[in-house]
This record gives sequence, structure tokens and C-alpha cells, in this order.
Amino acid sequence: MDKVIRKEDLIQDPQPFADQWRYCIGTGRLGLALRKEYLDALEQVQKDIGFRYIRGHGLFHEDIGIYQEYEWQGETKVLYNFHLIDQIFDSFLRMDLKPFIELGFMPHQIASGEQTIFWWKGNVTPPKDYQKWNELVRHTIQHFIERYGIEEVLTWPIEVWNEPNLVNFWEHADQKEYFKLYRETVWTIKSIHPDLQVGGPAICGGTDYWMKDFLDFCEQEGLPVDFLSRHAYSSEPPERIPFAVYQNLSPSDSLLNDFKSGREYLKDSAFPDVPVHITEFNTSYNPTNPLHDTAYNAAYLGRVISQGGDYADSFSYWTFSDVFEELGVPTSLFHGGFGLMAYHGIKKPTYFLYEFFAKLTGDTLYRDDEIHIVKRKDNSIALVAWNCVSEKEDVPPVEVTLELPVTDGFYFIKKSTVNEEVGNAWNAWRMMGRPRFPSAEQVTTLKGIAVPGITISQEQTSKGTLTVSFEMKKNEVTLVEIELVREETQPYDGLDDEKLISYRN
Amino acid sequence: MDKVIRKEDLIQDPQPFADQWRYCIGTGRLGLALRKEYLDALEQVQKDIGFRYIRGHGLFHEDIGIYQEYEWQGETKVLYNFHLIDQIFDSFLRMDLKPFIELGFMPHQIASGEQTIFWWKGNVTPPKDYQKWNELVRHTIQHFIERYGIEEVLTWPIEVWNEPNLVNFWEHADQKEYFKLYRETVWTIKSIHPDLQVGGPAICGGTDYWMKDFLDFCEQEGLPVDFLSRHAYSSEPPERIPFAVYQNLSPSDSLLNDFKSGREYLKDSAFPDVPVHITEFNTSYNPTNPLHDTAYNAAYLGRVISQGGDYADSFSYWTFSDVFEELGVPTSLFHGGFGLMAYHGIKKPTYFLYEFFAKLTGDTLYRDDEIHIVKRKDNSIALVAWNCVSEKEDVPPVEVTLELPVTDGFYFIKKSTVNEEVGNAWNAWRMMGRPRFPSAEQVTTLKGIAVPGITISQEQTSKGTLTVSFEMKKNEVTLVEIELVREETQPYDGLDDEKLISYRN
Amino acid sequence: MDKVIRKEDLIQDPQPFADQWRYCIGTGRLGLALRKEYLDALEQVQKDIGFRYIRGHGLFHEDIGIYQEYEWQGETKVLYNFHLIDQIFDSFLRMDLKPFIELGFMPHQIASGEQTIFWWKGNVTPPKDYQKWNELVRHTIQHFIERYGIEEVLTWPIEVWNEPNLVNFWEHADQKEYFKLYRETVWTIKSIHPDLQVGGPAICGGTDYWMKDFLDFCEQEGLPVDFLSRHAYSSEPPERIPFAVYQNLSPSDSLLNDFKSGREYLKDSAFPDVPVHITEFNTSYNPTNPLHDTAYNAAYLGRVISQGGDYADSFSYWTFSDVFEELGVPTSLFHGGFGLMAYHGIKKPTYFLYEFFAKLTGDTLYRDDEIHIVKRKDNSIALVAWNCVSEKEDVPPVEVTLELPVTDGFYFIKKSTVNEEVGNAWNAWRMMGRPRFPSAEQVTTLKGIAVPGITISQEQTSKGTLTVSFEMKKNEVTLVEIELVREETQPYDGLDDEKLISYRN
Amino acid sequence: MDKVIRKEDLIQDPQPFADQWRYCIGTGRLGLALRKEYLDALEQVQKDIGFRYIRGHGLFHEDIGIYQEYEWQGETKVLYNFHLIDQIFDSFLRMDLKPFIELGFMPHQIASGEQTIFWWKGNVTPPKDYQKWNELVRHTIQHFIERYGIEEVLTWPIEVWNEPNLVNFWEHADQKEYFKLYRETVWTIKSIHPDLQVGGPAICGGTDYWMKDFLDFCEQEGLPVDFLSRHAYSSEPPERIPFAVYQNLSPSDSLLNDFKSGREYLKDSAFPDVPVHITEFNTSYNPTNPLHDTAYNAAYLGRVISQGGDYADSFSYWTFSDVFEELGVPTSLFHGGFGLMAYHGIKKPTYFLYEFFAKLTGDTLYRDDEIHIVKRKDNSIALVAWNCVSEKEDVPPVEVTLELPVTDGFYFIKKSTVNEEVGNAWNAWRMMGRPRFPSAEQVTTLKGIAVPGITISQEQTSKGTLTVSFEMKKNEVTLVEIELVREETQPYDGLDDEKLISYRN
Repeated sequence: MDKVIRKEDLIQDPQPFADQWRYCIGTGRLGLALRKEYLDALEQVQKDIGFRYIRGHGLFHEDIGIYQEYEWQGETKVLYNFHLIDQIFDSFLRMDLKPFIELGFMPHQIASGEQTIFWWKGNVTPPKDYQKWNELVRHTIQHFIERYGIEEVLTWPIEVWNEPNLVNFWEHADQKEYFKLYRETVWTIKSIHPDLQVGGPAICGGTDYWMKDFLDFCEQEGLPVDFLSRHAYSSEPPERIPFAVYQNLSPSDSLLNDFKSGREYLKDSAFPDVPVHITEFNTSYNPTNPLHDTAYNAAYLGRVISQGGDYADSFSYWTFSDVFEELGVPTSLFHGGFGLMAYHGIKKPTYFLYEFFAKLTGDTLYRDDEIHIVKRKDNSIALVAWNCVSEKEDVPPVEVTLELPVTDGFYFIKKSTVNEEVGNAWNAWRMMGRPRFPSAEQVTTLKGIAVPGITISQEQTSKGTLTVSFEMKKNEVTLVEIELVREETQPYDGLDDEKLISYRN
Repeated sequence: MDKVIRKEDLIQDPQPFADQWRYCIGTGRLGLALRKEYLDALEQVQKDIGFRYIRGHGLFHEDIGIYQEYEWQGETKVLYNFHLIDQIFDSFLRMDLKPFIELGFMPHQIASGEQTIFWWKGNVTPPKDYQKWNELVRHTIQHFIERYGIEEVLTWPIEVWNEPNLVNFWEHADQKEYFKLYRETVWTIKSIHPDLQVGGPAICGGTDYWMKDFLDFCEQEGLPVDFLSRHAYSSEPPERIPFAVYQNLSPSDSLLNDFKSGREYLKDSAFPDVPVHITEFNTSYNPTNPLHDTAYNAAYLGRVISQGGDYADSFSYWTFSDVFEELGVPTSLFHGGFGLMAYHGIKKPTYFLYEFFAKLTGDTLYRDDEIHIVKRKDNSIALVAWNCVSEKEDVPPVEVTLELPVTDGFYFIKKSTVNEEVGNAWNAWRMMGRPRFPSAEQVTTLKGIAVPGITISQEQTSKGTLTVSFEMKKNEVTLVEIELVREETQPYDGLDDEKLISYRN
Repeated sequence: MDKVIRKEDLIQDPQPFADQWRYCIGTGRLGLALRKEYLDALEQVQKDIGFRYIRGHGLFHEDIGIYQEYEWQGETKVLYNFHLIDQIFDSFLRMDLKPFIELGFMPHQIASGEQTIFWWKGNVTPPKDYQKWNELVRHTIQHFIERYGIEEVLTWPIEVWNEPNLVNFWEHADQKEYFKLYRETVWTIKSIHPDLQVGGPAICGGTDYWMKDFLDFCEQEGLPVDFLSRHAYSSEPPERIPFAVYQNLSPSDSLLNDFKSGREYLKDSAFPDVPVHITEFNTSYNPTNPLHDTAYNAAYLGRVISQGGDYADSFSYWTFSDVFEELGVPTSLFHGGFGLMAYHGIKKPTYFLYEFFAKLTGDTLYRDDEIHIVKRKDNSIALVAWNCVSEKEDVPPVEVTLELPVTDGFYFIKKSTVNEEVGNAWNAWRMMGRPRFPSAEQVTTLKGIAVPGITISQEQTSKGTLTVSFEMKKNEVTLVEIELVREETQPYDGLDDEKLISYRN
Repeated sequence: MDKVIRKEDLIQDPQPFADQWRYCIGTGRLGLALRKEYLDALEQVQKDIGFRYIRGHGLFHEDIGIYQEYEWQGETKVLYNFHLIDQIFDSFLRMDLKPFIELGFMPHQIASGEQTIFWWKGNVTPPKDYQKWNELVRHTIQHFIERYGIEEVLTWPIEVWNEPNLVNFWEHADQKEYFKLYRETVWTIKSIHPDLQVGGPAICGGTDYWMKDFLDFCEQEGLPVDFLSRHAYSSEPPERIPFAVYQNLSPSDSLLNDFKSGREYLKDSAFPDVPVHITEFNTSYNPTNPLHDTAYNAAYLGRVISQGGDYADSFSYWTFSDVFEELGVPTSLFHGGFGLMAYHGIKKPTYFLYEFFAKLTGDTLYRDDEIHIVKRKDNSIALVAWNCVSEKEDVPPVEVTLELPVTDGFYFIKKSTVNEEVGNAWNAWRMMGRPRFPSAEQVTTLKGIAVPGITISQEQTSKGTLTVSFEMKKNEVTLVEIELVREETQPYDGLDDEKLISYRN
């Protein structure tokens, strides 16, 4: 079904397209941020997309080792060891990324139980002694303030724990215990500086009423709440095979509905104005779902990136890179990881969705569920379109026609595209025989393929209207950039391409 | 007209495809080799193509300043100043490039006349005192030996002067004087070490009999000749406009015929076995002919790269980069320069011709005037095809079909293409309005466009035959690489793309 | 003679030490800014010192080639070619350096005469047609505005010509003609934007009355003057040898007196408040005076860096690097060049003088003619001291003792020193036999030597006073940094160096 | 006590000083080789020192995850996952380092017990099923051959396990079980290719008779042995404090004696000619002994580096970097780690010992227990001297005087020194108050201090003898390099430093 967007369809009073979509990005556990491959990937992401915050698990995990109890002269003492976390946060800040702090999991020396999560065994039980937990939080935040300055740390949101409403992430998903943890933590932090930003409950979907319960609890106990946070995934129950899962997805509405839920709960609470952060979202919540590697994943999320900012103050894609090891060391180059970027710096289609949206810096001229058009400061026009198709069959491409009211002249039009074939490393990898551990040459080939296809053209206006048409193939995501051709002031005297063998003007 | 290459067309006893085509590359005057943009470009060229020698004018020019006469206590003395040439040769060698030395032009302090060439005023008159010239040559070569070692310098060909058969390059194109210069020079060098390699006469076309005269002269005078050198261009007289020229080209045969001429003259001479070096070649000899920037230039030269090695021991494309200033500072991003690479590291179609040929490392399975196929050591097959079309009209693409006798299985086929639209920065630049001095954003766009278009596929053999087909558009140059798909030893248990939304196996 | 600085000698109300000394730095002709070695050197300089502006000759010279007249269809036209200057200014701005523009010299196509200066033949004659000059200026400034934005270009001072009071730099040192040039130029620029900053007369010493004449002329003609500029050198007439000169120096007062002269002339003029820029200064004005390479040069200039800002709004060291070719290609690694940095990135003593002063970011606690002490924001104390000795004999070191009123505790004291032996590459080069064209190994040795000697110590206060003593050898320049030792909050339980073999607490 | 080395003390027939000392270097567990800091450090080490092999624990550990058992359709299968080890070995080879493979520890899925070692829980129990172990070894080695080629892998020594004679590293230090492991492993590997090099028993000191037992066992069972390996440390029992230990050291003889033991056992065995590899050595075996950070450690090891090659085919310093986590995340910048290099790329004194020895490329002219002198190919002379002092008291420096028979002339002498103050970051860190987690500025200061002090001089010979004297302070390590000053062929006419203010010739 073809689409025509006419002049009269455009927004009369265009408003800036805010970029909540790049407020924050998710990462594998913080300990991975010491790796070269991780850092190289993140640097590339920042160059191409430019997120502002980064959030991941494992701040208090043993591989970073902040909490170290020891005995000395008959006394139990604690050494707070910031050696590695300093390196990690230094790296983030050097790349213009601020930490979106998630407090967790529990250092085993102060854990009340043995339950752990993930290959790397993050302990998910409450503290056996809240005073020790509070001291840990206090020393940690104070250290950050000493190292980075209070002005800086005041801009870092601090989220208490991760998905306490899941039994895997918080022993028994014990709400009462979580609320206690929140109370202890928020007072500890506010005692350092009242403007430090603390929030929760960082829940995953399924038991959304936790948000209401949380707000009610904080109201009753007079606790500060600086933001409300939750997660959103749209995948259904998995079918498991040895190193992967398959899942269906709910429509992308379901993600937007989850985004909306925060403000709905807040509206009727004692905290109507605090921001809502979707501190994780993706299609599937499983890091071995091959869907993450596909063009479908990108096309599916187009609408979410375009519209999510209507409902939430941030929504953080989980995660930027496949350097991520919750279920063990990934067993293949492509393995269904969350990453925008696969190993070896190979960009997935969803990476390009983000990279394309990063070009939409301006006022929204038009948008619907398949396209988002902006006018930029320099009067150029840019749009991202996506064509999400769930059917397995080949479908005919959609023809998009756009009429733009512009200054008369010639326009340079640059179209950058990824779809199931173009710019699609996963597809190429399948054709190569899915090499688990590709050779250097294979990596080079895949990186060469993992770039958007670019086509350019020049179009002339007719009576103040520029008509631009393009086709959208199945699961294609496209960026179109339209710029007035500016004749150089100094003409090229005598120029005549007709005089070149084989060429015409 | 479509082309079919059948199994029986293949060479039964394939021989290695030697790479005389990348033995040497031309450069703008050596003084430019101090520039960052030049060095960055050369580094990229070496990474992608890997030439072995580099040759350019201006060794003895004042901007390098080797020869410096001065007065001291009533005496005229000479300081030989190797400060800059050391930097330049150090840079070359660091990039695995050896100097192909061209002795010239004349330091003005020992020149007999005032005639100069180029914007930078290279003096083209004989020495006023051959002893001073000989001293200059001796000190220079000796310095190179001290700095780089005799083993190294013995591998550097030393060519006496440049195009002495043109009045622009050698006063009056005085043959007798040139022969004197050769005699003086060759004895000077041989007195340092008898195995240093000296040659000439480095002529441009038009008066090819100079080669015979030169060989006869050397025979008569008993002079050593270690190689014979000449240049080859196929362009006809220019039509000039302010900052460019237009020219017709003779067919590419004419270049190959020029390449052949050296061995023909040698055959009947006293030096039948010395190598022939085509120390410069290109389509047009003019650095402002826009043809150099086009896909036509690349497609035209395909045959020359493929076959030139049959006739000459090297043939050196003039030049690797548009950082080249014979006619003054270039007046625009694209300006018809010789370079494989335009300014700002933007690759031209002919760059990709070379980059593609650099993948043909193996035995020649087949070649004709439009295609060259090799089998590589790892049994993969690679070919470069070109479709040079001089007509201005659009012409239908040529369908190429190839039948290859191979091990049965699935094959991964990667096609990399440049043509008049794809991978063609010059074309994009025209559509942009030919910005003379492009902004950083425009440069980024052009570099993004200046990459080959890549398409991949997987094909299955049928009874030991793999059939590969592809289309060649007008002035297209294409690299096809064909590799057996190797199934990973460890199967992906349970894998079934059919279970992915929207995908099929 | 030893020096003691007591508490009561310190300034009671310390004021910020402004950094006019790093407002601007000089460079060899702009065309050199395309070289890799130049750019690498400048990047290092900016990292270590951080100048804000850069000024050099040759904006309109043929090696940049902005002005290109040509004929087309019987008409003379001009192409303004900004290809190279864009590259150059892009590089500067990328390194946080703004151009301090010097308009000159004269493109030969519009020069009225043949007189040139320097090896590279800058034409120093008036325009033969002021309209063409004005067009050149207009197109150039307008191009900068288009490329870099008007906000940016408004911050670039524009100086009309260079040293017109010298016959070498301006034909006949014709004052009347210069004033005409100024009038034409200033009106051309102000017609583009009235807030563009234009100034002159950029004179060298000797005929300082030009400043008065210039101000009077501008007043009479009603011309804008946005700044007054002049140069300052303290060397006396040279004794010449083939590739060097020897000169005596006037005392450093003479430089400061030159700095002062601008405000004195302004005071009584119609432009009492415009800034004074010393757009060049150094000891010797000759780029082959070995003094530039010595520790003496650094020690001599200590006072000037410390006090120059009292008298001028900027004073620009001429120049940052020995990549500088006014008298031809330098004939040796060390050759008396102006540069803070010799070839190959080797730092001279004066480089360290600047690097040391770059640490004096704070309020001046004390200064005299041999020392400058500041207190920094973090309460640390830093000082630079210098001990300039003109005698050839060895002299005993000066003992400096400093009493500082500080918080009680232990202090970490770091002393960084260069003198005639320490951190002195020129001295090492002499011992090596003055290799003209050093090998890579020799360069590595010299770079290893060209670092300040560092000594550290820990001192304890006594009753609120910290006493710091150090020796100053002949021609030594020293940076001392003094910081309170902060005990880590977490003690190292059980630590006892006494238990280490060979060590004590 | 001063030292004089006379001409007649020199070796008459000098032989090459072989570099077994840089045959191999130790590393923290291989999983750390993914970290950026680790890789940066290793790159620096390779640039300055240039080891040839690298050996570390943890090849089969879960953080690399090679062995992954899983269930599929009722069957237990194994996925061999080489994703991370490929990255790691790729990195090593890119830096010209080959793996010295250590097979271990036991993947928990095939371990027979629960015993682990280190914070990262390496399992040290025998396989529960030797067939699974053999398959793991076979797949692993075969994968290396596929990826890197058999030619390459044939050059990698393969050591079976680590320190099986210690109960911590091999359950019950069960010799019989270790021999079984060796037998199974060696046959598995030899069945892949008979020239793959396998060895053991990789013991630590204390029960050296294991070497005899091992050789006897192999003889009896007819097992191949390609090399014999052991470890050597000279530290005595520790006194422990919370995050460090203190230990005395035996004299450095004890290390050399350990080195010798291998050949002694071999001599009388069935394998008299196989090489001996000391696959680990250091002063203390504890990664929290502050001695590792000191100048004493460097001076103590001077003799071992100089003489160790007499007794062993390699001896591998344990380890190159403090990025090493056997006892948890280090709790401070300096913490007594094994590394030649501390965190943040800060070089320790022992780093310089190695860097100095890397300059001794030539024939040994003289050596004793405190000095090693070589003559290099270019006739320059280089020596390393060390002055190890165990007393806590200050001791007077040792004066060393050297008489060298050389060509008459002037010599350039460069002395590079580290001792307890000079080039000593640990000492500076102590003065700074031992900052656990230093700021960026503190790191910069420490890196500035952690460079050898350089002093230069020029000495003239007298009748064919060059006399060189220098002082050695307590725990100083010094490199002296002596080169003939070569006068430039072109004299500097008129040069006269006497004409420079303040200078003399």
C-alpha cells in the first residue's frame, strides 16, 4: 500500500523533536567496561549516535570488588576499593557518557543468602545488615563526589536495585523487603546531599502495580522519589534450543503502552511531576534471541524511537554491544545478543536505526507510524522511514511519495538504507555458513557489508514544491536527507561534461 | 552483447598473475611528501593496494634544497643538505615503499640557463659545470648509502632525468646533451658501487627513436645500462578552458603498444635482457582533465592493468594522489587531477580498479580484454571485470556468465562494484553542485559514497560446476570473489530461521 | 647571591596572573602548516602550553594560491582559491587555535613591483590596483565568514601587512603608501561587518614614531583602529658565518620597554583604549642564531613572560617550531631557528619555560625579576624561577629559600628543571658531534634527553610555615609545585616499610 | 668498595650474549588479556623490551569458556567455544608474542572435584573422565592449527598443568594422577602432529625430585618429553598483613641454582638434550609483596638476568603487569603486584632493568656479578650495572671505572639510571601519601617520574684507551652506552660557540 504525504499533511507549527531516545543506553555488567572491545565499540557508538547516559548491572559485584571486608587485630574492617570503578567511570566520562547508577547486586560478604543470577553469579538477596549496606552506598557515592565533583554527581540518577519484582533478581520478589531497601538507601544518599537524585522501583513488566505500591509506600513513609523507573520488553514466552530462544513479539504498541504506564501511575500519586525513565527496553528480553540481529528488529522499533519520547523521559535500549555475558561467553559471532553492535565492531540493522535517528535534529514536520520527518536548522530536511513486515512471504515494496514546500531550486537527495540484504551483516553471515569464530578476512567482509546502502539523486522543484519518492522494501529502514544545491559563487568557466568521452551534462 | 565463459575456455595450466602493475606508483614532486594529507593518502594506498616503489620529480629542486653553494673565506663551497629528503625517504620506507629515483631537475646554482617548468619552477637546463653535477649526484647517492645501507640502495633504480625528448623538460630537447648527462651520471654512480642500477632515457612518446639512439650511444661509448625507461599516455591534443582541458583518447591498445616498444628496441640492441620500466602512464598527461575522476578512466584501464605486465617489467600509474601541483594549487575538490585519490582521502573509481586487482593474487584461470580471473592459493576464485563504453548514450548492461569447475558445495559470492553511480564520488559531487571547497559534512558524504557497492549471494554447484552470473553496467568495474562455504564443525543444534518472525530458512 | 622570600614579602591581596603570554604564538609561513611535522609539533605545543591564537606570514602567497587571475572569452577574471587555506585554518581550529590574520604579502598578479623577501619570494610591493586588493581582501574575509561563521571571525584580529617600516618588508618602507593600504583595507573589511577587528601598523623596532604617525593619520582620516601592533627583538647587529649569525643582546628590559611603547603612544592619541598586540617578539630576529637553542634564551625570557602582560595585551613568541624556511631549508638539526621546538619534535629549553608558565594558573603571591609564585585554586602553590647568567664562566648556584604560610601538614614538592645540561638537547647534540641529519636512534636519544629533570621531596611544616629551598644553576629554569599530602581515608593497616628488605619508613 | 675493570680483564674472544631472558614473559590469567589496560601495557612492553612468548594460567577457565556441555535431544554434547581465546591469541600474535601454552585448569563440567584456587576459582582437580579432557585438548589444539596454521603452532610449547606438586594447584599434589594426566595429554597432542612440543612438569620449588620422577616415568612409559619445566622464587615464609605480605629473600644464587637443576636432572635421564624452561620466576611468589615495586627488586635481579641464560633455555618473569587478580581486585595503585608495570602504565624499576638489558645486543666483553658489558655490531659498547644492597642503612656509592680498548677519538657516553629516588614511581607515590586511587594529575606526575635519569658526557681516548667512570648508588641499576663521535663530513664553517653569550667551546 503506497503512501503519499502532501503539503497539507505537514504540521503547521513544527516543534523540536526531542531526543529522549538517546538519553540513555544499556550495557552488559560494568566489569565488562574494562575490555578493549567494549570500549572500542562504545567509542564508535558515541561518535555515530551520542547517548548521554549509560546504565548497567554489577556496580557492587565482586569483579569490581568495591566491598572488601577484612580482619585486623581482632576487628572486622572494610576496605572500599574503587580501583576498577574509577577506571570504568573515567572511560565513560571521557566519551561524554554519564553513569545512570543502578545500586546492586549484593556483595557476598554482606548478603543474607546464597541466591545468585547469571553466569557471573550476582547475589540477589537482601543485605544481612542494612547498616553495612548503607555504609557501602555512602562510601561509594561520597567517593564519586570526591573524584568527579558534586556538580557532576548531582546529574547522575541513582536507581535502587534492578527488577525486584522478579524472583530471579530479588529473592522471593519480596516487595516489603525492597521497600525497606529503598527507604534505607534513599535516606543514606539524601544525607550526603539532598539534591542527589534517587528513584525506583526499576521493575520489569508483569506486575506493574508495584509502581503504585511503590509510590504509595513512599508517600506514606515520606520518602523522596526523584524519578520512577521501569523496563519494557515485548516478547512472549520462549521456545528454547541449546544456545538460543525463539519468541513471538506483541505489537510495538505494547512497548509504548509500557512507556505510558509510568506517568499514569504518577498522575494520581503524591509525585505527579517526577520524570519517568524506562531504564531498559528491547523486543526480546533474552540475550540469545536471533531476532536482535535482524532487520525486522530495527523496522519494528522505528515507531518506538519516533514516539517513545511522548510518554517517557528516557527509554534505554538494552544494550549497545554484544560484549555481554549474562548466560556465559557467547558461542558464536552472531548469537542473538542484545547489542546494537555485534562482536568485532560489526553494526546490526538496529544500530543504523539509531544512527539514522541521530540525524533527525530539528523540528518535526510530519510523523506517522512508519515515518518521521524533520526540518533542520539549516533548512535541510531529513526523514527516517521503516517498513516492518511480520509475514514470512516476500511482499511488494511500499512506494512513498512526499511533497515538500521549499525554496525553488535543485535539491541533493541522499538515501541511506538497510534492509534484509543491504547493510545486513547477519544475512551475509548466514550465507557464509554462519562461521562461529570468523577469520580476520571474514570479519573484514562482514564489516564491509555492514554499512548502509547509499543512493543519491538531484531533483528540481516545480513551483515551490519538491516531490521526493522512494521505495521501502520489506523490513527496510531508510534515512533520506534533502538539501538545496548551492551553486558555487565562482562559476566554472567553460565547463561542459559533454566534452568528456562517454559523459553528458 | 553477453558473455559466457565455459569450463573449456579456462587455461589448463594456469600460471601466476605477476604484479608488475603494482611495482611502482607515481607521485607529485617529492617536496609534497612532507604534507600530512599526502602522507595520509599514501598510507591508505599502501594498506589497500601495496605498491613497492614510488617515483616523482624534484629530487634536486630548491624546495628540498640538497645543493647549497656558499662562500667562506674567499672560497666557494657546497653544503649538501639532506634534511628534508631524509624525512621524505624515511616516510616512504616506513610505508614499505622504496624510492625509484629520478635525478633532476637542475639546482639553479649549477644550471646553465633559466628555463623552468611548472608552477614550482623546476630548472630544465644542463649543468653549467658537469663536475658540480657529478659531485651532487655522488654526495647524494653516498648519503643514501650511509643512511639506508648499501643493500637497500642497490635495490633502488636510478633514472637519469625526465622526458629529455620534450623541449619543456630538457632545454631544446637536446639529445646530444642528454647523452652526455647520462654518461657523466652513470660513471659517477658506478664509481660508488658497480651494482647500483642506472637507466634512462625516460622519454615521453612522440619520438620513440630516442630509445634506439640511447641504446646505440651506450653501446658505442661502452656505458652500462641497467634498465630502459619510457612513459605512455593515450590522450590526444587538448581543448583548453580556464582550469581544465578536454581530450579524446586513443584506444587502450595504444598504451600497451607503448609498453611493448621497449623490449622491441632492446631485442636488437647490445642490452637485450635489461628490464623495461614504464615510469609513467595514464590516460591523459594533463593534471586538469576531468576524465581522471571518472568511472570511464577506470574501465578504460582495466585491460592495461591486466595485460601490461606481458610487455613491461613495471608500469607506474601517474599518480597516487591529487596532492600534486604542477599547474599551481588546484582550484577545486575535483579538478581532473591524476590522483587515484582526490583530496580529503576521497577515492576515485580508478583507485578501486587498483584495489580490486590487488585481490587477484593467484594463477590466471582466464582472461580476455574485459575480464581477468584467478584462482587463489586457498582455492577461492577472484575476478575483475570492466566494461568500458565510450558512447554517450546509455547502453544495456552486459550479462556475464561463468562456469567454474569446482568441488561440489555451496559458494559464497561477493561482488564489489563501482560504476557511474555506485562508489562514484565525482558523480555525487556533480549532483551536490560541484562545491569547490566542500564543508566537512560534504566531505563526509562524499567519502561515504566513495565505497564500492557490495552484493552477496550463495550459490550451489551442480555436478561439479558452479555457475556465476552478473551484470556489468556502463563503465562498471567489478570484483567478484567466490569461496566455498565451510560448514562449522559444531552444528547449531535446533537452529531454524523459520521460527524467527518474518524469516525463512 | 642567595635569595630568601619571607612570608611578609608575599602579596597580601593576590590577583590572578593573566596569561597574555599565551594569547598568541608565531609560525613560519602559513604554507608550511600543511606539513605533517609542523602539525604534529603544533599539536604537542597545544597539549603542553595551549596558545589561543596563531599568526604567520604568507596568507596571500602563491604557495597557498588564493588569488588566481585568468582570461576567459576576452575578459580578465579572478578565481579566489581557498582550497589550501581552508585546510590550514581547519587544522588550527581543530587544535583550539584561532587565526591572528596578517594580510600579506602581495600576490604577484596584482603587485606593482618585483621586490621579494625570503627564500620563498614573498612580494613586498604595493598593489598596482587597489580595487583588486580590496576585492581580494573582501572575498577572503567573506569566505572565512561563510565557512566558519561570523561569530567566529569576529574574534579574529586582522593586521594589515607586516613590518612596513622596514625596506625589506615594504618597498622603500613607504609610510604614505602603507597608510593608503591601511585605509583601503580597513574600509573594505568594515563594509563586510563593522565589528571585524582591524589594526596595524605591525612595525618592527627602530622607527617607533610610525606608531604615532599611524594613530595621527587614522584620527585625521577618521579611520577605525581596533588594535595597535608592533614587534620586539633585543638582539644587536650580527656577525655572519655561512649558515649562522652571532649577536649580542640588550638586557631583557629592552623587550619590556618595547612592549610598553604601544600604550604610551595610545595614551595621547584618539584611541586611548584599544589593545596593544606585540605580534612578534624574541631575543634575536634571525632564524639562524644558535642562541635560540640554548638554556640562556629560556632564562633570559623568564622575566619577559612573567611581566610582559603588565604592558601589552599579547606578546607572541616568534615562533613555535623550527619548521620555518625564510632563509632556505635549514641545514642542520639545530641551526639557531626560532622554534620552541626543533625538528623531530625535540623540545628546546624555551619550550619548557612556556610549559612551566602554563602551570602558573592562579593568583600571584610574589614576583620579582627572577621568580614568579602563584597560589592555585586547589590551594597548591606553583612557581617558576630562572637564573639568567651572561658570563661565560661557571658561577655558583643561587640558593633560593621560600617561607610559605600554609595549613600544617606534610607537603609533596615536585621540582622540574632545565639548564645547560639537564633537559638540554642542544647540549647533548654538541656532545654527539653535532649530527646535521641525525639517525632515528640519535633522535630517540635527543628526545629522551629533552625532558625536564624532576626531583621530588616531602617536607613538613613548622607552626604554619613551610620552608622550601632549592638551588638555581647557571641559566636554569625551574618549576616548583607544592601540594598538601592528603592521607587516604582508609589506612593501610599493618603497613611498615621497615619490614621490607633494604627499606626504612 | 670501588671496582676497576681493566683492558686485560676483558674477554679475548667475546661471544654473543644470548637473550633467553626475553624468551618468555608471564601474565595474569588469560581472561585479563581482553582488557584495554592490559593490552596497552603489553604493547608498551613489547616496544621497549620485546619478549617472544607469553605464558599464563586459565586457558580452560570459565571466563574464557572453551568447554560448554549441553543437552540436546536427550544427548550430552559439547560445544567448544573459541570466541574469546581467538581474540586473546590474535592480540598476542599482533604484538609478536607467541603463546607458551599452559593446559589448565579444569573446566568445572569435567572436574572430578570442587577444589579451586584464586579469587577467580580455577578448578584444580583431575578430570572425572579423561576422554573428555583429551577431547578438549584435541579440539583446542586443532582449532589453533586451523586458525593459525600448523607451522605456527609447532613453535608453541605446550606445558601440561601448573605446579602439580603443590596441593593448592593440584588436588593432593597427587603425583601419580599428574603423570596420568601427562600421559593422556601428550599422546592426544602427538596424535594431532608428532612435532607439537609437549612438556612438564611445571613444578614449583620444594619438591624438586618431581623432575627426576617425571623423567623416569616418561622413560618407563615411553612418553615423549619435548622440554622440562619448573618455577623459581627466592622468597621465604611471609608475614601477613591485611593486603600485603613481607618476606625475606634468599640470595640471588638460589634462583640460579633452581635454574640449574633442570639440566642436572636431564643429564642423567633418557632425555639429555631437551630444553629447560623456567616458566615462572621472581623474587617473591606473592602478588602483594611491596618488594616487587622497589629498586631493590631490580638490583637483586640484575645478576639473574645476566647469568640465567647459562643454565636455562628460558626464564620467564612472573609477570609483565599488575593487571593480575589472583587474590582479588588489587586495593591500591601500588600493592606489591608482580608486574614490571604498575597500573596506568607506570613502569617499575624492574621494568627498566629489562629495558636496559634489551640494549645489550652484542658480544659479551666482560661480566661479573654486578655488571655485564657488550660490544654491539656497530662497535658501540653498552653495559648494565646493578648495585644490590640489602642493608637498611645508607651506604656510600660504588665507583666503577672501566678501561676500554677502542679506536682513538671522542666518545659520547649516555648513562640511564634508576635507583631509590631516580625513575622510581613507588618512592614518589609514598611521598604523595600513597594515594590508593590516584587522580589523573597524580598519575601524570608518577609517569613523569617513572623514567630513567639520563646523564651524558663526552670523553676523549688516550692512546687507544677510553676510561669511563661512574658511581652506583644503593640499589641502582644503570645502563651506559658508549659511542664514537662521528664528525659530520661537512664542517660547520665559522662555528664558534665562544661567540654565543654565556657559552664556551
